[in-house]
Amino acid sequence: MRTIFVPRSLVAGEFLQRAGDVARHAAFVARGCLRSFVIDAKGKEHVVQFAPEQWWLADAISLNSGTPSQYFFAAIEDSDLLLIDANGQQQIVDRVPGYSEAMRTGLQKHAAAKDLRIVKALSASAEERYLDFMHTFPMIAQRVPQWMLASYLGVSPETISRIRKQLARK
Amino acid sequence: MRTIFVPRSLVAGEFLQRAGDVARHAAFVARGCLRSFVIDAKGKEHVVQFAPEQWWLADAISLNSGTPSQYFFAAIEDSDLLLIDANGQQQIVDRVPGYSEAMRTGLQKHAAAKDLRIVKALSASAEERYLDFMHTFPMIAQRVPQWMLASYLGVSPETISRIRKQLARK
Repeated sequence: MRTIFVPRSLVAGEFLQRAGDVARHAAFVARGCLRSFVIDAKGKEHVVQFAPEQWWLADAISLNSGTPSQYFFAAIEDSDLLLIDANGQQQIVDRVPGYSEAMRTGLQKHAAAKDLRIVKALSASAEERYLDFMHTFPMIAQRVPQWMLASYLGVSPETISRIRKQLARK
Repeated sequence: MRTIFVPRSLVAGEFLQRAGDVARHAAFVARGCLRSFVIDAKGKEHVVQFAPEQWWLADAISLNSGTPSQYFFAAIEDSDLLLIDANGQQQIVDRVPGYSEAMRTGLQKHAAAKDLRIVKALSASAEERYLDFMHTFPMIAQRVPQWMLASYLGVSPETISRIRKQLARK
C-alpha cells in the first residue's frame, strides 16, 4: 500500500484545499485534527465537519467529477495525513475483498449521522445541540476553539459562553 | 430481477415504516411521493426527506444493523414502490458489474447534498432556504402541502405564507 497512500504533514492553520480547487485526494487523518468549512455570500465561515484521528476528509463530488470544490480543508493542529487519489482507491477496491462493502457501509452511517444533524439543526435548541455535541464528540469539543464549535453548531460564540455558564451553575 | 424487487403500493397517507420498526427493505419510488420524518421529544414532526419518483428511501443503519429505525416513512400521494432487502442488494452487487461503484457514487452525492443542507440550515435565512428549495426541487415544491415544506425547511407554515406573499409583491 506504500505507493497508494501518500503521506502529507500540515502545521496548524495550514490548508489542504481551498474552495475553487479541484480535489485530487481523499485524506485519512493519522494524527491531528482538521476542519472543513464553507464561506457564505456574506463572507461568514461555517464549519461543516471536524476530522480528528482516524477520520476521512474528502470532497467526493469534486474528486469524482473534476469540478471545483466549495470546501476549505484546514489543519486545526499540526497534522499527519495519508492521501489517496481516485486511482489508488480503485486499486484497493479491486484488490481488497470486502473493502467496497465496508466503504459503502461507512458512507451509509455517515449519511445517517448527517440526517440526524439536519434534524437537530432544524429542531433542537442551541443548548440541546451543544450538549449533544459534547456527548457525541467529547474529544473534539476539548480540542477546538470556542468560535469553531459555535460555527459548527450554527450559534454565536456568545451563545456558547452563555450556555457554558448556565451549565456550570446547574 | 423479478425475484429481487418486490412491488408494493401505498395509498396517500399510508405508512411504509414507523419509528421503532426494524427496516427490512430499501424502497425505490416508481410512482408517487413519500416523505421520511422524525418526531422529537416534544411530539413535533420534522420532515427529513421527500422521495418522489426515481428516488430511494431507506434507513441503511437499521437495515444493516437490525436496530429499530428512528424514521417514519409515509406516502404523500398514492405510490408504487419496489422493495429490495439486504440479501437482494448483495445479489445485485455480486451480479451487476459497476453496480457497487454506482451505489458508492450515489451515496457520496447524497452525502454532499446533506452537507449543503446542513450549511444552509445553519447559515441561510428562511427566505433563502425557501428559494433554494424551489429552485433545486421545483417538482417537489408543487406537490407537497405547505406545512410539510415548512417542516422540511425548519420554519413555521406562517413564515412560508409570509415569504410567498413578499415574493409575489416583488
